[in-house]
Amino acid sequence: MAEAMTAPLFEKVALIGIGLIGSSLARVIRRENLANEIIVSTRSAETLKRAEALDLGDAYFQDAAQAVEGADLVVVSVPVGASGTVAKAIAGSLKPGAIVTDVGSTKGSVISQMQPELPDHVHFIPGHPIAGTEHSGPDAGFAELFEGRWCILTPPTGASQEAVSSLTRFWERCGSTVEVMDPEHHDMVLAIVSHLPHIIAYNIVGTADDLEAVTKSEVIKYSASGFRDFTRLAASDPTMWRDVCLHNRDAILEMLARFSEDLSALQRAIRWGDGDKLFELFTRTRAVRRSIIEAGQDIDVPDFGRHVVAHPKKD
Amino acid sequence: MAEAMTAPLFEKVALIGIGLIGSSLARVIRRENLANEIIVSTRSAETLKRAEALDLGDAYFQDAAQAVEGADLVVVSVPVGASGTVAKAIAGSLKPGAIVTDVGSTKGSVISQMQPELPDHVHFIPGHPIAGTEHSGPDAGFAELFEGRWCILTPPTGASQEAVSSLTRFWERCGSTVEVMDPEHHDMVLAIVSHLPHIIAYNIVGTADDLEAVTKSEVIKYSASGFRDFTRLAASDPTMWRDVCLHNRDAILEMLARFSEDLSALQRAIRWGDGDKLFELFTRTRAVRRSIIEAGQDIDVPDFGRHVVAHPKKD
Repeated sequence: MAEAMTAPLFEKVALIGIGLIGSSLARVIRRENLANEIIVSTRSAETLKRAEALDLGDAYFQDAAQAVEGADLVVVSVPVGASGTVAKAIAGSLKPGAIVTDVGSTKGSVISQMQPELPDHVHFIPGHPIAGTEHSGPDAGFAELFEGRWCILTPPTGASQEAVSSLTRFWERCGSTVEVMDPEHHDMVLAIVSHLPHIIAYNIVGTADDLEAVTKSEVIKYSASGFRDFTRLAASDPTMWRDVCLHNRDAILEMLARFSEDLSALQRAIRWGDGDKLFELFTRTRAVRRSIIEAGQDIDVPDFGRHVVAHPKKD
Repeated sequence: MAEAMTAPLFEKVALIGIGLIGSSLARVIRRENLANEIIVSTRSAETLKRAEALDLGDAYFQDAAQAVEGADLVVVSVPVGASGTVAKAIAGSLKPGAIVTDVGSTKGSVISQMQPELPDHVHFIPGHPIAGTEHSGPDAGFAELFEGRWCILTPPTGASQEAVSSLTRFWERCGSTVEVMDPEHHDMVLAIVSHLPHIIAYNIVGTADDLEAVTKSEVIKYSASGFRDFTRLAASDPTMWRDVCLHNRDAILEMLARFSEDLSALQRAIRWGDGDKLFELFTRTRAVRRSIIEAGQDIDVPDFGRHVVAHPKKD
């Protein structure tokens, strides 16, 4: 039983893209012994060299088609706008029966890009681990990234249950809990919990950067009063986020419209001095944070634990 | 010389209000020996009892007037809407030559509330430490809160230089660096670095909480993809933030207008698929975060160090 738990789930895993997510997968696959062989592929010669220097895999290819040869599991971890190109490149080299998955933040668009390119003899099970940091590239990954997080799978109708189970076990061994969802619902949920927050963060940092009356150095100096929190999301990978905006447009525009409507009402309450309305909102939002902490989705330490990290001896 | 550095700066300090800021001051004053006597005052009998149980001071009064008797330094740490009431209450009991300061997030409004109430024989030097967490109350404070942070003073024209120097030394011994600014400029700077971020955070958490198509439990579950960052600011003290909105109205409305204008442009770029515009903004904002980290105003650890705190053994 103990042996079955720790036996590799796959003979050969090909990781197409070796950024934050791809390189975290490489690390956890090795640590947890989830595959006998890890193949790493990325278009950039420089990044591939770095992945090799970090010893993330067993073989390295710039050519994605070569990388997927004989692989039982192929994980595509590239900006969502590149999904179609990757699918086209690997289609002819995929092993029959292989599971092909991705980690993209939008699912409708990825499916419509990849599905038509892939042969019928593979199992395409799109996925999205709800985990990340603001850093990117092969150096940014770490094996614990997926621990305690959710991973959403959006298998197409008629997908092999065995393939879904196999991919579920994989994510569970990475430390995640798997949820199955339809792609449209995924894109709506992610628009509010992830895409809107990033867009708002990028926007406010842009607004502050453009002011004339307040200098850039003042914005930096006094950022600990709230602003700095937004700069973390606004430091995320620009290519990835450009693609998310372009590929989940409708759901994002819907959430932006609601946000702006609510902001206008709040602005009106400030203009007219409606303290009760402000107090009501500011109290209600507090409860949401409590629920997030109770659900284990954030740490129960003030200020995200910054003071603990900055002053480890004193606490 | 070493003795002069560590000698108490004040004989008797009165802390009016003993929440996050007041109780952090109590702790650092004691740790650094900044005063021989610490007097604690708050209107709420329950909070006062808690402050006493925490051993935050040497004497405790519900009545602010009694608390300030004989004090060389009076620090008012209450929601900014209560500043005028506190000034009126203590005016008749202040010791001639005493320094009266506050820690409020708005300065124009606090000055117009307090200045007319205070007698000419005290030195009124408004202040604002740029530090805090999302927690409130006497239990939430800690002595390191002000370390490496800025404290802004907005002394009125003709203020005693000696009093300003004395208060500056006090904040320096608390670990902060002091900056002098005029109140109007302070209110504009804080509107962008602190007030707008809080309002936006409250707003987005409210928007997410109101959706029908996405359940509250989904928002909670998948919050690690960005949303949870906003819930920290949106968990801040509702009374404090209601008062900030009501008392820095004009500067906040100005910043909200700029933010909304920029957001409309961003929305338009998303609608029309203008990837270059999105990429340009998302790249520019990344540099702002780098500057904040270089200025020591945030920690250089991904995800605010959450993973370090959550997985201390593995990192």
